[in-house]
Amino acid sequence: QMGLAENQLTSDLVEDWILNNPEASICTPEGINDFRAIANFQDYHGLAEFRNAVAKFMARTRGNRITFDPDRIVMSGGATGAHEVTAFCLADPGEAFLVPIPYYPGFDRDLRWRTGVKLVPVMCDSSNNFVLTKEALEDAYEKAREDNIRVKGLLITNPSNPLGTIMDRKTLRTVVSFINEKRIHLVCDEIYAATVFSQPGFISIAEILEDETDIECDRNLVHIVYSLSKDMGFPGFRVGIIYSYNDAVVNCARKMSSFGLVSTQTQYLLASMLNDDEFVERFLAESAKRLAQRFRVFTGGLAKVGIKCLQSNAGLFVWMDLRQLLKKPTFDSETELWKVIIHEVKINVSPGYSFHCTEPGWFRVCFA
Amino acid sequence: QMGLAENQLTSDLVEDWILNNPEASICTPEGINDFRAIANFQDYHGLAEFRNAVAKFMARTRGNRITFDPDRIVMSGGATGAHEVTAFCLADPGEAFLVPIPYYPGFDRDLRWRTGVKLVPVMCDSSNNFVLTKEALEDAYEKAREDNIRVKGLLITNPSNPLGTIMDRKTLRTVVSFINEKRIHLVCDEIYAATVFSQPGFISIAEILEDETDIECDRNLVHIVYSLSKDMGFPGFRVGIIYSYNDAVVNCARKMSSFGLVSTQTQYLLASMLNDDEFVERFLAESAKRLAQRFRVFTGGLAKVGIKCLQSNAGLFVWMDLRQLLKKPTFDSETELWKVIIHEVKINVSPGYSFHCTEPGWFRVCFA
Repeated sequence: QMGLAENQLTSDLVEDWILNNPEASICTPEGINDFRAIANFQDYHGLAEFRNAVAKFMARTRGNRITFDPDRIVMSGGATGAHEVTAFCLADPGEAFLVPIPYYPGFDRDLRWRTGVKLVPVMCDSSNNFVLTKEALEDAYEKAREDNIRVKGLLITNPSNPLGTIMDRKTLRTVVSFINEKRIHLVCDEIYAATVFSQPGFISIAEILEDETDIECDRNLVHIVYSLSKDMGFPGFRVGIIYSYNDAVVNCARKMSSFGLVSTQTQYLLASMLNDDEFVERFLAESAKRLAQRFRVFTGGLAKVGIKCLQSNAGLFVWMDLRQLLKKPTFDSETELWKVIIHEVKINVSPGYSFHCTEPGWFRVCFA
Repeated sequence: QMGLAENQLTSDLVEDWILNNPEASICTPEGINDFRAIANFQDYHGLAEFRNAVAKFMARTRGNRITFDPDRIVMSGGATGAHEVTAFCLADPGEAFLVPIPYYPGFDRDLRWRTGVKLVPVMCDSSNNFVLTKEALEDAYEKAREDNIRVKGLLITNPSNPLGTIMDRKTLRTVVSFINEKRIHLVCDEIYAATVFSQPGFISIAEILEDETDIECDRNLVHIVYSLSKDMGFPGFRVGIIYSYNDAVVNCARKMSSFGLVSTQTQYLLASMLNDDEFVERFLAESAKRLAQRFRVFTGGLAKVGIKCLQSNAGLFVWMDLRQLLKKPTFDSETELWKVIIHEVKINVSPGYSFHCTEPGWFRVCFA
């Protein structure tokens, strides 16, 4: 299973923690007295302990260089739900978000299906290692205008899925200047924040807002989507988070969150777990260490057979370059090669085409 | 707190069960070996054990006179999410559902806010104890046609919130004939199925489909919304269920459920709990007994001071008739009286106006 970006490298640490903290569960003699209140609690603000713990964890996974306000933490049903709620809040049907390619295929469903919102691709390619540029942003924005599409926002994924790369400070500054100048919203998907396993480190958009005081930025335009599916490896727990600097969006998203709240049983457990500083510290260090090791072994193996990957240091996957193995530089050839890999090599990888990549021959392979 | 329909009468039974079944939790030494698989499991079909257990529980809460197919069980974020997903599946923006009044105020948000669907009231009043009639249905349907509104479905709540009454077989037959004749969908909210505490018993729409073979009914038009928030008293666990007899709706709703899946931690616990026949049997019997007793004490107390309620035998509330206490038969007077009750009697009740009742002077009071 190398097609699904899931993280199973650290479940032993979590299991140990749970056994050592039976009071963190409402299903043990130590915690059962809270069962009644927790199962019956239904409030779209969520448990206060949970919001506090998530805010703290978000800060920690961003190096504690910034803080997050628990009152801006809004729950949703996974990152899937978080993206949809954000789109519902920010745009009307027919309006659009710019999205740099290659991007996570789920966005086509999550952001568009029920909201009627459009996605306009921003062209990035291998010529500069898929780095997002101001020119590409301007081109996409202009193209949308020509097509009479109203652009309401820009959606970036940092660290990137499928690239496994992180955005440097210069790029993030460009992004902020761009959205501020155009008066459009910025949605930052940071669900891979804690999967960065080597230097350079991850820079959250929150740090740009705090640090880069020389560039103008209306904070009301900035929103972060977060989740515990990748960083903790808990996709089943459905913890999606919207963190918005905009009060109106916080209020609207909170009301919409009633369609996809996090189970209070899960809120309760996670509140306790994420509030344990010593555990979180150890977990994150160990997670980065194990990811780095897997990455080294995996890309090392590929290198031995002459396969290169895009230089990356985050995520649970690599962006593998098989362009030289294509019969022709076409997506038909890519699909042909993909079928060989799936059926004969029997490894489940994802072709670049599914991420809207414009250059045939790239594949995402999950290694975690 | 008598304004919120919540059920806390049986949490002691649940607590006992949990302590006696530590393997049902992935947070105990007995269950921890499953933590890894469960936290990492993410599939919009849900755990097979969970779907089986819910199907069985739905049958049990409907007297085991019918069975439910686990493959038609679709998860959603509470009944809130279930209603929205159903509306997204069945209607386009501007199209409408008929809804008998008085109805749960949340429908105005859940069904309409993001879907753009309309709700058209079906008039019911105290002249026949708020029973839904064929004439009222036809009138509402005709009225919508005159207003150029396309009616796509009928939404009924059985047992009724706020009335606390159940629909008899004759009414349900009328409903089925009506929707079949008009070729519109029927959404049955049965989230209070297990709160029936005295005769006559609850009849699910599923029984009408099974038993009443003399009336024509296209099953593709019928959908049930269920939840564990009221019957088990677990609103915090966010278990909403869509059970549809229509394959296309099952498939579409299942894809949409990714916006509001149930936490696998919670699925795992509930699968085990609801599969315990002996426990479920005892729980339901005890729950009905305690509800009946509360109801008796509560309405007895009201009767002593001359306050009558609509004759009911289900739900966590009564529909209290304070018409004789109004200064004038207006909603202004109702609001005035409501303020007195809230501020001076200091009891949180809900005025009939909020349920779209057309007759001033009715109030919903929660007793569970």
